[in-house]
Amino acid sequence: MVSAKMYELGTKKSTIRTIFEFGRKRAAEVGEENIFDFSLGNPNVPTPDFVRDAAIEILKTYEPAQVHGYTVAPGNPNVRETLAKSINARFNTNYAGKNLFITSGAAAAITICFKALAEPGDEFITFAPYFPEYKVFVESVGATLKVVKPRPEDWQIDFDDFKKLLSDKTKAVIINSPNNPSGAVYSKETIAKLAEILKDFGREIFIIADEPYRELAYGVEVAWVPDFYKNTLVCYSYSKSFSLPGERIGYIVVPDEISAFDKIFGAIAGAARVLTHVNAPSLWQLVVAKCAGKSVDITPYEVNGKILYDGLIAAGFECVKPQGAFYLFPKALEADDYAFCERAKKYDLLLVPGADFGAPGYFRAAYCIKQETIERSLPLFKKLAEEYKTIRK
Amino acid sequence: MVSAKMYELGTKKSTIRTIFEFGRKRAAEVGEENIFDFSLGNPNVPTPDFVRDAAIEILKTYEPAQVHGYTVAPGNPNVRETLAKSINARFNTNYAGKNLFITSGAAAAITICFKALAEPGDEFITFAPYFPEYKVFVESVGATLKVVKPRPEDWQIDFDDFKKLLSDKTKAVIINSPNNPSGAVYSKETIAKLAEILKDFGREIFIIADEPYRELAYGVEVAWVPDFYKNTLVCYSYSKSFSLPGERIGYIVVPDEISAFDKIFGAIAGAARVLTHVNAPSLWQLVVAKCAGKSVDITPYEVNGKILYDGLIAAGFECVKPQGAFYLFPKALEADDYAFCERAKKYDLLLVPGADFGAPGYFRAAYCIKQETIERSLPLFKKLAEEYKTIRK
Repeated sequence: MVSAKMYELGTKKSTIRTIFEFGRKRAAEVGEENIFDFSLGNPNVPTPDFVRDAAIEILKTYEPAQVHGYTVAPGNPNVRETLAKSINARFNTNYAGKNLFITSGAAAAITICFKALAEPGDEFITFAPYFPEYKVFVESVGATLKVVKPRPEDWQIDFDDFKKLLSDKTKAVIINSPNNPSGAVYSKETIAKLAEILKDFGREIFIIADEPYRELAYGVEVAWVPDFYKNTLVCYSYSKSFSLPGERIGYIVVPDEISAFDKIFGAIAGAARVLTHVNAPSLWQLVVAKCAGKSVDITPYEVNGKILYDGLIAAGFECVKPQGAFYLFPKALEADDYAFCERAKKYDLLLVPGADFGAPGYFRAAYCIKQETIERSLPLFKKLAEEYKTIRK
Repeated sequence: MVSAKMYELGTKKSTIRTIFEFGRKRAAEVGEENIFDFSLGNPNVPTPDFVRDAAIEILKTYEPAQVHGYTVAPGNPNVRETLAKSINARFNTNYAGKNLFITSGAAAAITICFKALAEPGDEFITFAPYFPEYKVFVESVGATLKVVKPRPEDWQIDFDDFKKLLSDKTKAVIINSPNNPSGAVYSKETIAKLAEILKDFGREIFIIADEPYRELAYGVEVAWVPDFYKNTLVCYSYSKSFSLPGERIGYIVVPDEISAFDKIFGAIAGAARVLTHVNAPSLWQLVVAKCAGKSVDITPYEVNGKILYDGLIAAGFECVKPQGAFYLFPKALEADDYAFCERAKKYDLLLVPGADFGAPGYFRAAYCIKQETIERSLPLFKKLAEEYKTIRK
């Protein structure tokens, strides 16, 4: 009577959701302060005052129809110009408004790209560990997701495995840097080598750069991918940079240099249409333009990451140093990451198994939570590690 | 290199778009005041102050994370409860929050329903004249749209033709009352007869009631369809009732009485997920809850409709009296409605051919424009009618 696939997608609980719900239940039993929930990637730095002030000023001073009317599908032309200029100032690029398509957040942005590009039989490639919705979204447009195996020493790219998956069916490569869940930022060398391999392949393949965490990088530079490879679509979101995940606002950059700009921009408009993203929320288009070039103070994330990293290393965990986003992705203390996360629950440490992201044997700890909670969690991580020492003996 | 279908959907200009662009060009040549643009269904009654005030109060007084954080996919639980109570107070129903799924407007709401329900080979039925995006959206979920022929005497339902199209493939029937483009409101008798035919069919068929124009009815009652037929999904939008089309906010009502509530609600969640409607914009969820039960003053639309209707009748046009929405759908003065609309352009009257809505020989005039523009257009409609009298002689 209903679509079996939609029912499955709408009802099968994700691991993260199950952990989160367990956390809510435990919090009711033992108190919120005794639960150490590292499961959710929800920004905890508040939306900056300048965003709220911009929204209030627009509501108070603009004509309502200017604020709340339909915009054309790619977005308010002035907003697109303003955001293009802001990108240009930062990355020394030369975009105009016509190079931007404003979207309802990054999930819409990437899926619009998938749908715009996908032809029957197409494959998309991404790199483990990866955001699991990629698989859902790629399959929803009738294509297949191929996953390159992880490179745990630094969570950069395993190019040997990548080359094995590249084929005549490859339509695009999805990269996510700063990365959820690894916290890695792809180095310029990584991006350059990826670009080189794709250029040498002899057939046009796109890069879809999913960059919701662009602003969250700690002392490392996040490369502007189109500088390295012209056939790149950059997908951005204000969910993290302005702590606005509920408002659904972001954009796609379609550079002039891309092959067949008109074809691609046209197909993006068609994909947005059938995905019923009539236009990105109009007030928020104006707000992000008014706040162009600004972003949240990321110090709290940086401090949290350092405290958690140092604490885990001191407790005997192995972990790549955090470079960006708000996740650590340490090695689990046993091969079975699900069993490890179950054991951690006994200490009310809520962690997500790495297998959920295509990297078994690891776990994700989201540190976008209160610093004090992280500090109080460290003795528990230590106890957990000590329990493993006992087991191993 | 791209999806040919998406490119076509993103670049093929609709008739309405072409007319609108012609209008912009003419306005630049002869002045805005000399263009009589009846082509766009864009609400011209400003967003009410109570909506703006609610938004500002929320921004000023709530914690940012409460306003801008992700909500669960079906929407903020408190918002869903509030809206359910508001519906109950008005329609004497008994819904709870769990019966509502908040969406990014009505386009998302109906397409989520299509995607949730559609199984391979399914057909959806609607009634001419109809909103042309229905065809795009139904086909995008892999189903087929069947269109019942129009009933021009009152734009109610041609039940004989409807019965011919009903089959074992029919998954759902899409109704849109008040109607775009006819302005008709389905009478209780129409809804009751539709329900009776569906009940007698011996197989479960859903009604999807697309109701963005619910609040825009002039002296007639808009039936609450689930009162007549239990397998009804009601899709609502605040685009017209609060003049917020750019903000993308609406909902789906899934009554308890529907067959297999859990299956349907689950499939709706899955469909919203793959259409990347992560959640409806979170600030606007709070705003519409705060303004529950209120709506814009529809008097300007009612006055406009009456002036245009009286003027057209006086000029010799045939037209069903406006009952709702902000459209008139008169008979064209020649069989070829495209030729008629071309001739009207000479007088800078911009009208949309009825064939675009599945009803050739008619035209749509959207009267959500300035009253003064309508008044000044009437002598031109008269001249146009007189030109036809000369032609006929």
